[in-house]
Amino acid sequence: MEILLSDLAREVGGEVIGDGARPIDGVATLETAGPRQISFFSNRKYRQEFMATKAGAVIVGPKDAQGQRPEAASLLVVGDAYLAFAKVSARFHPPATYPAGVDPRAAVDASASIDPTATVMPFAYVGPRVKIGARAVIHANCAILADAEVGDDCLLYPGVVVRESCTLGARTIVQPGAVIGGDGFGFAFEPAKMRHFKVPQAGVVRVAPDVEIGANTCLDRGTLGDTVVGQGTKIDNLVQIAHNVEIGPLSLLAGCSAVAGSTRMGKGVILGGQSGIIGHLEIGDGARVASAAAVYGDIPAGGAYGGHPAIDQTRWLREQAATHELPELLKEVRALRKRLDALEGGES
Amino acid sequence: MEILLSDLAREVGGEVIGDGARPIDGVATLETAGPRQISFFSNRKYRQEFMATKAGAVIVGPKDAQGQRPEAASLLVVGDAYLAFAKVSARFHPPATYPAGVDPRAAVDASASIDPTATVMPFAYVGPRVKIGARAVIHANCAILADAEVGDDCLLYPGVVVRESCTLGARTIVQPGAVIGGDGFGFAFEPAKMRHFKVPQAGVVRVAPDVEIGANTCLDRGTLGDTVVGQGTKIDNLVQIAHNVEIGPLSLLAGCSAVAGSTRMGKGVILGGQSGIIGHLEIGDGARVASAAAVYGDIPAGGAYGGHPAIDQTRWLREQAATHELPELLKEVRALRKRLDALEGGES
Amino acid sequence: MEILLSDLAREVGGEVIGDGARPIDGVATLETAGPRQISFFSNRKYRQEFMATKAGAVIVGPKDAQGQRPEAASLLVVGDAYLAFAKVSARFHPPATYPAGVDPRAAVDASASIDPTATVMPFAYVGPRVKIGARAVIHANCAILADAEVGDDCLLYPGVVVRESCTLGARTIVQPGAVIGGDGFGFAFEPAKMRHFKVPQAGVVRVAPDVEIGANTCLDRGTLGDTVVGQGTKIDNLVQIAHNVEIGPLSLLAGCSAVAGSTRMGKGVILGGQSGIIGHLEIGDGARVASAAAVYGDIPAGGAYGGHPAIDQTRWLREQAATHELPELLKEVRALRKRLDALEGGES
Repeated sequence: MEILLSDLAREVGGEVIGDGARPIDGVATLETAGPRQISFFSNRKYRQEFMATKAGAVIVGPKDAQGQRPEAASLLVVGDAYLAFAKVSARFHPPATYPAGVDPRAAVDASASIDPTATVMPFAYVGPRVKIGARAVIHANCAILADAEVGDDCLLYPGVVVRESCTLGARTIVQPGAVIGGDGFGFAFEPAKMRHFKVPQAGVVRVAPDVEIGANTCLDRGTLGDTVVGQGTKIDNLVQIAHNVEIGPLSLLAGCSAVAGSTRMGKGVILGGQSGIIGHLEIGDGARVASAAAVYGDIPAGGAYGGHPAIDQTRWLREQAATHELPELLKEVRALRKRLDALEGGES
Repeated sequence: MEILLSDLAREVGGEVIGDGARPIDGVATLETAGPRQISFFSNRKYRQEFMATKAGAVIVGPKDAQGQRPEAASLLVVGDAYLAFAKVSARFHPPATYPAGVDPRAAVDASASIDPTATVMPFAYVGPRVKIGARAVIHANCAILADAEVGDDCLLYPGVVVRESCTLGARTIVQPGAVIGGDGFGFAFEPAKMRHFKVPQAGVVRVAPDVEIGANTCLDRGTLGDTVVGQGTKIDNLVQIAHNVEIGPLSLLAGCSAVAGSTRMGKGVILGGQSGIIGHLEIGDGARVASAAAVYGDIPAGGAYGGHPAIDQTRWLREQAATHELPELLKEVRALRKRLDALEGGES
Repeated sequence: MEILLSDLAREVGGEVIGDGARPIDGVATLETAGPRQISFFSNRKYRQEFMATKAGAVIVGPKDAQGQRPEAASLLVVGDAYLAFAKVSARFHPPATYPAGVDPRAAVDASASIDPTATVMPFAYVGPRVKIGARAVIHANCAILADAEVGDDCLLYPGVVVRESCTLGARTIVQPGAVIGGDGFGFAFEPAKMRHFKVPQAGVVRVAPDVEIGANTCLDRGTLGDTVVGQGTKIDNLVQIAHNVEIGPLSLLAGCSAVAGSTRMGKGVILGGQSGIIGHLEIGDGARVASAAAVYGDIPAGGAYGGHPAIDQTRWLREQAATHELPELLKEVRALRKRLDALEGGES
């Protein structure tokens, strides 16, 4: 595939500085791109790589279009360089396609309903009354248990498990090994029998359309009501979502984050990597939680929290800066006390 | 299924306030329950939902039976509302049943011994000399490697791996994707060859009866001795248990917690979500570790620890409260110093 | 197998104190070893077990050879007791062997190239143009997608997924459920359509030879360039490696650690359990990150960092010690202020 730089610019609503007639046939990093490839530059950390690039063109934002630019490269200037890069890259990397049909080595229950345009690969298990939508792809070694539903255009990579009665909305992508609908962690201690009595996890997981679920991520089914993931939300790898959590639409949950039971998150929430939220909390729309933050309380809409325990991020940074002065502060206070002792002694 | 409220009350040892003759045919949340369903109320956060419920009956503890109650609902009053709810819910949600027998699409080694009442589903792999007990269920895409043993009434969801010679006690439930018996992380650096020499992980994992193991959780085999999980212990999703860890009975390990090598935990220990314990420690009976706590030292029996590094939870809360005053404290000390300078100057 | 203690000593370059003619037929822990078994002692925490051992021989370092020793045991004294133990244990625990060949119940694409000495077990899926090297073992339920390459002598335990075009170097061991080459977590928000636009993850994962990858660990493919793991590096369970991360050779990443996108780590880096590193950082050669540390900035070569946020480990320990004095410090400062008030009042 070959596209003129000016055509790419038109597609993403940008302008060319330099040679718009340059043919582009691929996307690459600043360091590896050649004269027929386009790259992008938005993180200032990589200014050196930008200036040294051999790329034929570089996508940049308006600010980066004004200063010095690499000798060899034309610029594609656009309001949001990262979004434009994503679209240009998608142009050169269309999604893989799969031949429709159920592989004879898959195990499909007779009562399952699989759209004829769907793909079911070897060793996929499709249980009773399962529904698989149009153009959905079920890779090898997936298991879709009884009464679950996989929407149109879903893509389930190998080893994904969707347990009983859970539903995935259209266009949802599930990376390998993710588990949707495992039992929530609910036990009631019974002293008379010295055991943890298992609380039935009778709800399901309902995933709205356009969601992405990362590799080996776990979404637990609800105890009574359901665990819910809102439309367009993206969840990274190794994330733990406990029973009855409600995640709003358009949220981003980075790798190894975890949300405990019954917490409700609004729309557009961002969880940093390895952050955690305890149960039964309310996290407002647009809240942002820093990496590794440990959230023990509600977060208001628009709040940015960090630390352990998590507090307002700006406040947390101030407290951390103060903590770095603490060893010296201890000495200072000791010194003050001695001076005070001396003063008081002098007065007696 | 339909049961009179008074019969449910008798079964769980409770009493009815209101109409015991009311027929109940299901369990639901306070918000969604209708007049023929029973719900429960124990977390005060949900008092509003309790008062507004349309449930026919609500299970409550003695304290919540005394105040106002929802108009429409009878109350089932019982000492432990959550336990009673669990039992009532289990009444309406009996475990799924599976037809006995080995699916012809499973791969079972000729030397394996599978009880005729067990269920082995398609694409399950059962290796040499493996033993599968009575009524055990092995879902699709599980792999049970050589010499492993799965006890009576075990339930292994899809994608579970039990590696060589590991054993699961009776009635143990393993959620999808869990790995029992992966190699422990043991390497000895060999400077002469500039390599990490792999230490053989020659032990196994021994899981006692009545354990639950969460989705994508990993229990590593021992290096020489074994990794051990005690009876009735419940482990949540994405938990990491390293080689030679010993976990006592009746413990609860919440999601994303991690225990490093050779640490020994007593009985009834509770680990909060994302908490971690380094290796070679002793964690006493009944110890409780808060969510996200980072434990670097032994915890005595009954200890409640939190923070990073984890210390006594009450102490940690005090230190955290003090940290919040730290930026102001720095200013205060500066002010004191000036006043002291002034005083001393005045005296000179 | 039976080996004389003196022969073992010769093999590992050590010396015997006691009876070199003693036949040894196995390795065991200090607590469980009998007179024909060898154990090892290097962690002083286990001195009591050392003195009480019934082992026929114990491997120790030079220091531990000088003091008291157990009555029953001869000593094998060697410079690095742990490395010698590893080698002796490997002598008694040779790796499992597997019959070569592709099981007829595997699904292998006609265009795949599998060395005749390799083993492919039931329900393994091997996609188009995949290459599997000599003596490689692919366990049940693995999925190797199109164009991926698995090097000579690799060992992939059940349920491993290697996605499109990723490569594993020779002798790499992958524990069950690990995912190599899942999509990186990259989305560009598109306000006009209120959606997160998926950035194509067009790179791959390249794993060098002699690497180990733990159970349910996830290595994401690069966005444009590749995610790279250097030779001889060992990665524990449930580790998250994001897109375009570069991990140098001979590093050790303990369980549940996580590295965010585009971070570059030098050689011989050690990450403690549950530690995390945000994206776009540089971690120098030989850097050490403590368990649970949250790294938000570069670490110089040889640096040892800990805490949340992570700082120099020694400094962090000092600040933590100071924090423990903080509640009392607050009281002290209040007292100082009062004394100062009194002094100033007295002077007025």
